[in-house]
Amino acid sequence: MADKIGIAVDAMGGSGGPSAIARAIKNFTSFNDDVFFHIFGKKTVLKKELENVGLKPKDYSIIDCKDVILDNEKPNEAWRKSKSSSMRKAIEAVRDKKAEAVVSCGNTGVLMLTAKMLLKMLPHIKRPSIVGVIPSSTSKGTVMLDIGANVECNEEHLFHFAIMGCCFAKIVLERDDPTVGILNIGSEQIKGRLLEQKIYTLLQKSKLNFIGFVEGHEVVKDKVDVLVTDGFSGNIFLKASEGAAEMCMDIFRGAIKNAGILGKVASLLLRSKLKAALSVISPNQHNGAMLIGLNGIVVKSHGSASTEGIEHALHVAYRLSKEKINERIKEELNKMDKKGISLNFVDKIKQKSAEIFGRK
Amino acid sequence: MADKIGIAVDAMGGSGGPSAIARAIKNFTSFNDDVFFHIFGKKTVLKKELENVGLKPKDYSIIDCKDVILDNEKPNEAWRKSKSSSMRKAIEAVRDKKAEAVVSCGNTGVLMLTAKMLLKMLPHIKRPSIVGVIPSSTSKGTVMLDIGANVECNEEHLFHFAIMGCCFAKIVLERDDPTVGILNIGSEQIKGRLLEQKIYTLLQKSKLNFIGFVEGHEVVKDKVDVLVTDGFSGNIFLKASEGAAEMCMDIFRGAIKNAGILGKVASLLLRSKLKAALSVISPNQHNGAMLIGLNGIVVKSHGSASTEGIEHALHVAYRLSKEKINERIKEELNKMDKKGISLNFVDKIKQKSAEIFGRK
Repeated sequence: MADKIGIAVDAMGGSGGPSAIARAIKNFTSFNDDVFFHIFGKKTVLKKELENVGLKPKDYSIIDCKDVILDNEKPNEAWRKSKSSSMRKAIEAVRDKKAEAVVSCGNTGVLMLTAKMLLKMLPHIKRPSIVGVIPSSTSKGTVMLDIGANVECNEEHLFHFAIMGCCFAKIVLERDDPTVGILNIGSEQIKGRLLEQKIYTLLQKSKLNFIGFVEGHEVVKDKVDVLVTDGFSGNIFLKASEGAAEMCMDIFRGAIKNAGILGKVASLLLRSKLKAALSVISPNQHNGAMLIGLNGIVVKSHGSASTEGIEHALHVAYRLSKEKINERIKEELNKMDKKGISLNFVDKIKQKSAEIFGRK
Repeated sequence: MADKIGIAVDAMGGSGGPSAIARAIKNFTSFNDDVFFHIFGKKTVLKKELENVGLKPKDYSIIDCKDVILDNEKPNEAWRKSKSSSMRKAIEAVRDKKAEAVVSCGNTGVLMLTAKMLLKMLPHIKRPSIVGVIPSSTSKGTVMLDIGANVECNEEHLFHFAIMGCCFAKIVLERDDPTVGILNIGSEQIKGRLLEQKIYTLLQKSKLNFIGFVEGHEVVKDKVDVLVTDGFSGNIFLKASEGAAEMCMDIFRGAIKNAGILGKVASLLLRSKLKAALSVISPNQHNGAMLIGLNGIVVKSHGSASTEGIEHALHVAYRLSKEKINERIKEELNKMDKKGISLNFVDKIKQKSAEIFGRK
């Protein structure tokens, strides 16, 4: 067990419940045998599910937790009250170095707050961000952050997001020198809000592989590897894309249905090719968003993820652990700090102005 | 000509050029015979194109303009220099009451600034907004504003957008009492930025048919008739949707192509049904975004719109003129003002605080 990677799993969240999680873990172990799972939740339920799928006892241990975080719980209340929830205990396992990473399908807000309180931030980083991968039809996709953690950001946050996003893209997209762009409503330099203007100037001066502004419709065309934006815009982008993709699927299904017997023939002819093509953009193929910037690896699986989706989130946690993403982020920040690249300029400006006012 | 509706057309913009515009006008006149077109641009070119399509001389006049606004021109420069451009002259026709509406496929920034300078704002309204229709597979779609004019907005702007959007939806979506929502990253009342919180409180108190926050993926599911947001988020939403829809189309085309002869058979079987189904979400079917809030009807057609798309923009301008949208907006604002609903509260707060500071 000593040389195995430890992954803590909060097994009580998500619409598929413990049985979907058990199947996902079982499927995962057929690809990787160097992982030990610390599984948190109701022991009686979990024991049955894990035995049912035939997971080998040497690969896991169950930690009995009496509380479960519900989807509608408020972060602050959950933090105060649910001290023995499966989610909190699973995060504690990372804090206590029993596991390298934690995976949860539960309440995002509670996960974010609990992880921030227990794990603390990486040096220099002020805000954890949610980083996800936007699918593309021709490549591995685009790493995007923030997709929903911080509704209002300043240029310092976005600068940190860019640095962390590059470390993430190197591992997940397997890119050597990922390109970085800023989500904006036009590609000309005068476009956007004050935030986009400020982060443009910063990234232009940085040593990152910066390519400028990227418009919404260009993202799926592999314009850039890492795209930074605030959590409000990122979430709007993500959900607008989801809605449009679903609508297109509905239209195709409707057209096939309306074509009667001809539609049935056509869909039979295309089935295998369509299935393969569509799997590229399936949310389950891209499930597993990291809460990046924390002193520990936290992966959020979508609440409605399928067994396949949860398995993908486990793979994300595994790769990020194996490649030591947080060590790489720390190194990157250290290198910049040593080169004299300012990492906490907003703080310094605030401090400076406080000094000036203090002298008055 | 006296009882006809006058539509001014800037015929020099757009990738299709004057010939696409001439065909669109000709097609339009086969549905409506109560419109007189004032067509602005190079007379020699336009005369030929309009005669080619067989437009009746009683239905139009050409106004020769020597300048054309280019796509890369900066608004301020164009405003100072291009005094005799087809775009500016066409807007002047609306200002001088020679036409009810103007349609242009040209540079959006220049159109916005020129229209604002020449037409001025409607009473109470501070900022013109771009209002468009987001397609849906099952209904007429969702009216959304702002989709790109104002990158930073306050709650007062969004409140005005909601009022104007409802007038627009009554005409374009033919809804009696349109529902109004706020684009947000969650449906719970605590979600979003300070802007979303403030506009929520205002709309809740208003007499509008307010339904709360709407998430990005719910828009295409006919959750709401009128959706308000700032111009940055609206534009991100629109372009993300465009990108995702295009990607889905590419995937389907790819699957059909990869299926070889079977794909050809399948696509032949489905062709007519698919074409009909897809036309619902074709950008050309939704072309024609109004610059709302101005003292005159200004309709922006997409630069790359097809003949069909430009024709749709002409229909939008026609219906908005016939239904006197701006009179309706003014009435609506007047009614609210009389009922004591504050319409310019941000101004009043600023004034109040200036008074307080003045008294000190």
